[in-house]
Amino acid sequence: MPLSDAQIARALDAKTKPPGSLGRLETLAARIARFKDSLTPTIETATLLLFAADHGIAAGGVSAYPQTVTRQMLVNFLDGGAAATVIARSVGVEVRIVDAGVAGEAIAHPALISRRIAAGTRNSAIEPAMGQAECDAALAIGRELAEAAPGDAICLGEMGIGNSSAAALVGAKLLGRTVGDLVGPGTGVDAAGLDRKRAVLAGAASRTDPLLPSGAALREYGGFEIVMMAGAAIGAAATGRIVIVDGFIATAAALAASKLEPASRDAVVFAHRSAEPGHRLLLDHLGAEPLLDLGMRLGEGTGALLAWPLVKAAAAMLREMATFEDAGVSGRN
Amino acid sequence: MPLSDAQIARALDAKTKPPGSLGRLETLAARIARFKDSLTPTIETATLLLFAADHGIAAGGVSAYPQTVTRQMLVNFLDGGAAATVIARSVGVEVRIVDAGVAGEAIAHPALISRRIAAGTRNSAIEPAMGQAECDAALAIGRELAEAAPGDAICLGEMGIGNSSAAALVGAKLLGRTVGDLVGPGTGVDAAGLDRKRAVLAGAASRTDPLLPSGAALREYGGFEIVMMAGAAIGAAATGRIVIVDGFIATAAALAASKLEPASRDAVVFAHRSAEPGHRLLLDHLGAEPLLDLGMRLGEGTGALLAWPLVKAAAAMLREMATFEDAGVSGRN
Repeated sequence: MPLSDAQIARALDAKTKPPGSLGRLETLAARIARFKDSLTPTIETATLLLFAADHGIAAGGVSAYPQTVTRQMLVNFLDGGAAATVIARSVGVEVRIVDAGVAGEAIAHPALISRRIAAGTRNSAIEPAMGQAECDAALAIGRELAEAAPGDAICLGEMGIGNSSAAALVGAKLLGRTVGDLVGPGTGVDAAGLDRKRAVLAGAASRTDPLLPSGAALREYGGFEIVMMAGAAIGAAATGRIVIVDGFIATAAALAASKLEPASRDAVVFAHRSAEPGHRLLLDHLGAEPLLDLGMRLGEGTGALLAWPLVKAAAAMLREMATFEDAGVSGRN
Repeated sequence: MPLSDAQIARALDAKTKPPGSLGRLETLAARIARFKDSLTPTIETATLLLFAADHGIAAGGVSAYPQTVTRQMLVNFLDGGAAATVIARSVGVEVRIVDAGVAGEAIAHPALISRRIAAGTRNSAIEPAMGQAECDAALAIGRELAEAAPGDAICLGEMGIGNSSAAALVGAKLLGRTVGDLVGPGTGVDAAGLDRKRAVLAGAASRTDPLLPSGAALREYGGFEIVMMAGAAIGAAATGRIVIVDGFIATAAALAASKLEPASRDAVVFAHRSAEPGHRLLLDHLGAEPLLDLGMRLGEGTGALLAWPLVKAAAAMLREMATFEDAGVSGRN
């Protein structure tokens, strides 16, 4: 019989601290206990799966940066100079870098996991971003990579010029919302760029019904990195690992995963509230309250990496803290 | 010539990320750069100084827990079973446990730093909590312990039944506020207990002028752990270490330190927004926006420990991230 919420609450309240005084660290520990079905969960190691891919919709001028930046940043990840790789070293998380479908020729590098679906998606403003077989392959690869990755937790990260557009479209179609409600500056388009992005995305959204099943939303508008993250969330959850979801783009993937495989939701911890305005809509739909709110909007898994020490500490707190009884500490007056 | 804010901003904007996209991690990195006067600051190790002491004002029934819990928790710290010691292990922070003046006989333990000023303060509801010589000694000891502690950053933590009352009184007198504005449930007194706490603190506050110099505020109402934390903030800052300040009680100490030694403010990072309502008043006065907001109200340095990975990561980001130029990554369109 799985642990009940009451059993978990009793275990937390028996620890040498006033009940509830660790606030959301206790809520997080309870979530971990429920998912792991354990009052002594071990969550000590984590891996960042960092997926890069390009987006046909970038041709519409929806990003502040040229498409070639995806490829250049993939090399920067491999060289360890990007925010995600620097922060991963700082917080002790192993990184696995995946080429999910970057534009141009394949990059040869011993540390790169090359699982390219194609050299970027097609332009979802005018046609489906990928075919059904491509979408199925990306889901399966994401799942497989997560299942094979070491660690008690899997952080999800992404890089792809244009992917805040893809995430806005996928999110809008999963929620049945107007895409305009989910459009934001992404990496930082200016006012004119934001107007152009809104127009391109509204046109892309008009190709299909307002509400789509998750498979169709991913195929019509997804990126290969978004679909692989959805698969990775499912694979990590299936193998009993906590999934730490980054910002707007990773949350769109986690939302798709939760619709494809509802049990995956139980594994997910939402790391941070992105500055991207559409993030709130996705989080609200998922009933999620992220751990951090630092005004970040970079992606790459940076928010997930910064939340990792909180996840690790929450599990350690539940697993290792003494009880009032064990420690001989007096209770309340 | 020290680094200018413009030089720091240029260094951050040269990194391979959209400008400002790491949000408050960038603000934090800029603060560290300014304090360390370096664009490659090394902040890799930290020590928690955890000060325990008892409070004469606890006799007024201001806490939900009996006074003996201070002593019992000190033993729990030494045994490694308390929240602070568990979380410190999890985030890789060394802990130094200081008996600043716990009631009863001295505790003999090889890992305990015994620097007892007295077996608890006097009851500040009726007389000054400590004499001038005691206050001076506690400040000097705090300073000395911080100067001698290893690490690039010093986390401040405390334990002492009654110390949210002492912090409310010290804070009120430093700000010239009615103490009622700073009274909260602390470890969790019930409604009747909160009324009693308000009455006891209002009486204590009426003994002295509404606004006191920091030395007088500490002597009249402080605890030995609060005064030692103030000294530690000054000592850590003087030796070039970042000071990570925990919740309400540590913030009262940091406020006193900033009034005794204004330069100490530059070293301080505020870790988290405590659920204790008076914390906001102290933070506002200090112009501080804490990194975390997790509804925590335990103390012991738990908030400072959870903020430590953010501080470490912010410095690593500034020190180790590649620039657009170095990495050959294209800039904005």
